[in-house]
Amino acid sequence: MAPNQPMMPSVLSDLDRQELLAVERFGGKDTHISADESPWVPWVGDIEIKILRVENRTGLLVIALRSPTDQSLGKHRHRGTVTATTMAGAWNYYEYDWVARLGDYVVETPGTIHTLHVTAGTEIVFTVTGSLEFFNDDDSLASVWDCFSFVNLYSQYSKSHGMVENPRLFY
Amino acid sequence: MAPNQPMMPSVLSDLDRQELLAVERFGGKDTHISADESPWVPWVGDIEIKILRVENRTGLLVIALRSPTDQSLGKHRHRGTVTATTMAGAWNYYEYDWVARLGDYVVETPGTIHTLHVTAGTEIVFTVTGSLEFFNDDDSLASVWDCFSFVNLYSQYSKSHGMVENPRLFY
Amino acid sequence: MAPNQPMMPSVLSDLDRQELLAVERFGGKDTHISADESPWVPWVGDIEIKILRVENRTGLLVIALRSPTDQSLGKHRHRGTVTATTMAGAWNYYEYDWVARLGDYVVETPGTIHTLHVTAGTEIVFTVTGSLEFFNDDDSLASVWDCFSFVNLYSQYSKSHGMVENPRLFY
Amino acid sequence: MAPNQPMMPSVLSDLDRQELLAVERFGGKDTHISADESPWVPWVGDIEIKILRVENRTGLLVIALRSPTDQSLGKHRHRGTVTATTMAGAWNYYEYDWVARLGDYVVETPGTIHTLHVTAGTEIVFTVTGSLEFFNDDDSLASVWDCFSFVNLYSQYSKSHGMVENPRLFY
Repeated sequence: MAPNQPMMPSVLSDLDRQELLAVERFGGKDTHISADESPWVPWVGDIEIKILRVENRTGLLVIALRSPTDQSLGKHRHRGTVTATTMAGAWNYYEYDWVARLGDYVVETPGTIHTLHVTAGTEIVFTVTGSLEFFNDDDSLASVWDCFSFVNLYSQYSKSHGMVENPRLFY
Repeated sequence: MAPNQPMMPSVLSDLDRQELLAVERFGGKDTHISADESPWVPWVGDIEIKILRVENRTGLLVIALRSPTDQSLGKHRHRGTVTATTMAGAWNYYEYDWVARLGDYVVETPGTIHTLHVTAGTEIVFTVTGSLEFFNDDDSLASVWDCFSFVNLYSQYSKSHGMVENPRLFY
Repeated sequence: MAPNQPMMPSVLSDLDRQELLAVERFGGKDTHISADESPWVPWVGDIEIKILRVENRTGLLVIALRSPTDQSLGKHRHRGTVTATTMAGAWNYYEYDWVARLGDYVVETPGTIHTLHVTAGTEIVFTVTGSLEFFNDDDSLASVWDCFSFVNLYSQYSKSHGMVENPRLFY
Repeated sequence: MAPNQPMMPSVLSDLDRQELLAVERFGGKDTHISADESPWVPWVGDIEIKILRVENRTGLLVIALRSPTDQSLGKHRHRGTVTATTMAGAWNYYEYDWVARLGDYVVETPGTIHTLHVTAGTEIVFTVTGSLEFFNDDDSLASVWDCFSFVNLYSQYSKSHGMVENPRLFY
C-alpha cells in the first residue's frame, strides 16, 4: 500500500496539469529489466555477456559480464566512456595496480588502453558508449566492438537457439 | 602477468603516436573507487546513501542506497534520467507492478513520478542526472535533490564526524 | 553525385555484414530538421522560442531563442547542463563580464545561477538537459521549466493556431 | 543593470545556503568561448575546423567546420552521436535527399554511414561523441577520428605556427 495517498486537495495549477499531460503524451516510460529475461551469451573464452539495455540514440549499451574461470580479454582502446559496477568477484586491468571487488565502482575515460582480467566468479555490469578497439600484438587493429556488435552477438546466439531477440532490451 | 606482451614490432605510425600523446596530455584517467573509501551516510528513515561519483560538468551522481529495514521514500518527480543496478534485496515503486531483485536493471525517464519502496537488506546503485522533486501530500513541492544536495548531506556528515570529503569522489 | 562510388570489391567480412544488418534493424536514423518546420512560439516579453529536438530518454531539449528587442529573462538556476551556439546578435548574463556574439560558444554547468540578457536581433540555439528554476525577488521558486514545459508551450500555441505538433521534433 | 535586484529579504533556508555552498565548492563554472580565441585549422581539401570544446570525461568534441569552396569529405561511419547546427551556407550527405541551410538542425545516430558535402561558404557547428571511421573505396578502414585526433591536428598546427594550445578549450 502506498504511503503517500493524498489526503489533501491538490494544489496543482492548470499549467501544472497541462505539463503533466505533456509528459504523458511525449515522455518515455520507466523500464524494469529482469536479470532472467536476457540470456547469458558466450563471448571470448569462458566469458559470457548479457544485454540489459541498448539505447540507439546515443549508442549506449548496458551489459553484464561474468566468467566462471580466470580469464583475460585482449588489450583494447576506448573511444567513449565506460562505467562498471562490481556485482561479485574480483577483477582488474593489468596496466593498473587496483583490484575491483563487490560494490566497487570504476570509470574508464575515452582514450585509455588496457587489458581486462577477471578472476573466477566475477560479475560486472558495464555501461558502454562509443567503441572498443581490440589490438593484435603488433598494435594493429584486430576488431571494433560497439553496441551493435554485441547486439549481433546476441542475435546470432538467439537464432542458433531458436529464439528471437527480446524487444524490451531496446529502449 | 599480462597476456598481451608485444612480441612483434609495433605498426603504429607517427600520426598514431602523436594522437596517443594527445590522449596522454589532454585525456582523463581511469578511476577506481573502492566500496570502503566512501562512508554510508544516513538519509531518510533507515535509508543510507554512499557517494561513488560526482561529475560536475553534467551534474551526474552515482550513489549506492541501502536499508537494513523495510522503508519508503516520498513520492518524487524526475527532471532527468536515473538508472539502477540491484546489488541485493528487493525493491519497487508503488505505482508499478514489478519488483527488482539481484541483477535487475531499471531505467527511469524524465517526467515520471513514483514512490520508492525497499525491503530489508536491499542495496541499489543509482546513476542520477538532473533533479528529483519530492512532494507533499497536497502535491506542493517539498524539496529538490540534485548532486549537490547529496554532496552537502555527505559534507555535513563528514564534518560532524571529524572527517573531510574524499577528493577522489569528484571526477 | 557521390565521390566515393566503390570501384573496388568490398573487403567486408560476413561478420561485418552481420553487424551492419544489426545497425539497420536496431539503429536510429539520421534526422534533419528544417528551420522552417517548427514555429516561433512567444515565451516571455518579446522572446520567442522554436523547438528543434525533444529527446525523451534523457530529457534533452534543443531550442532556438530569439528576440527582436532588448530583453531580459528572470534569474534562474540550472539543475543540468546547457550549451549555447550564437547564431546572431549579442547576449550575456548580468552576473558575468563576457558578451557572446556570432559563432561564440557557451557551456553552463549544473548549479549555476544567472540572469539572461539578449540585445535586439539576437538568436541562440540552446541544448538543455534537466530543469531551469526561475526565482522570485525573495529567492522563492517562481517556476520550473524542463523539456516538457517547453513542449506544453508549443502544444498550447499549436492548438490556439489550429495546428498539431510536428511529430518529427520528437526523436 | 540587472532586472532582478532583490528588493525583498531572501527566503532561503540554512539548508538552501549549505547546498549553494556545495555548488560553489564542487560545481563547475560557466564558460564562454569567443569565436576568435581558437584558430581555423586546415583539415581536408579546403575544409577548416575550429575547436570550441574538448570534454575529456565523455570524449565530447565541439568543432566549427567551414569551407570557402565546394568540398566533399570521405564516406565515414559513426560510433557515437553527432549533432549539427548550420551557421551559414548549405550542406548535405550524398546518401540523403535533404539539404541543410541556415538554422537547420541535424542529428546523426550511431551506426550510420554517409558522405559529407558542403557548398562554398558553409559553416557548421558539430558536437561529436565517439569516433568517426573513414573508409577506403574497398570499405577497408582508412582512419579513425575522435576528439584526440582533432586535438592533435590543432596541436600540430599550433606548434608549426609558434603557438601553444588554448587551455580554455579543454573543459
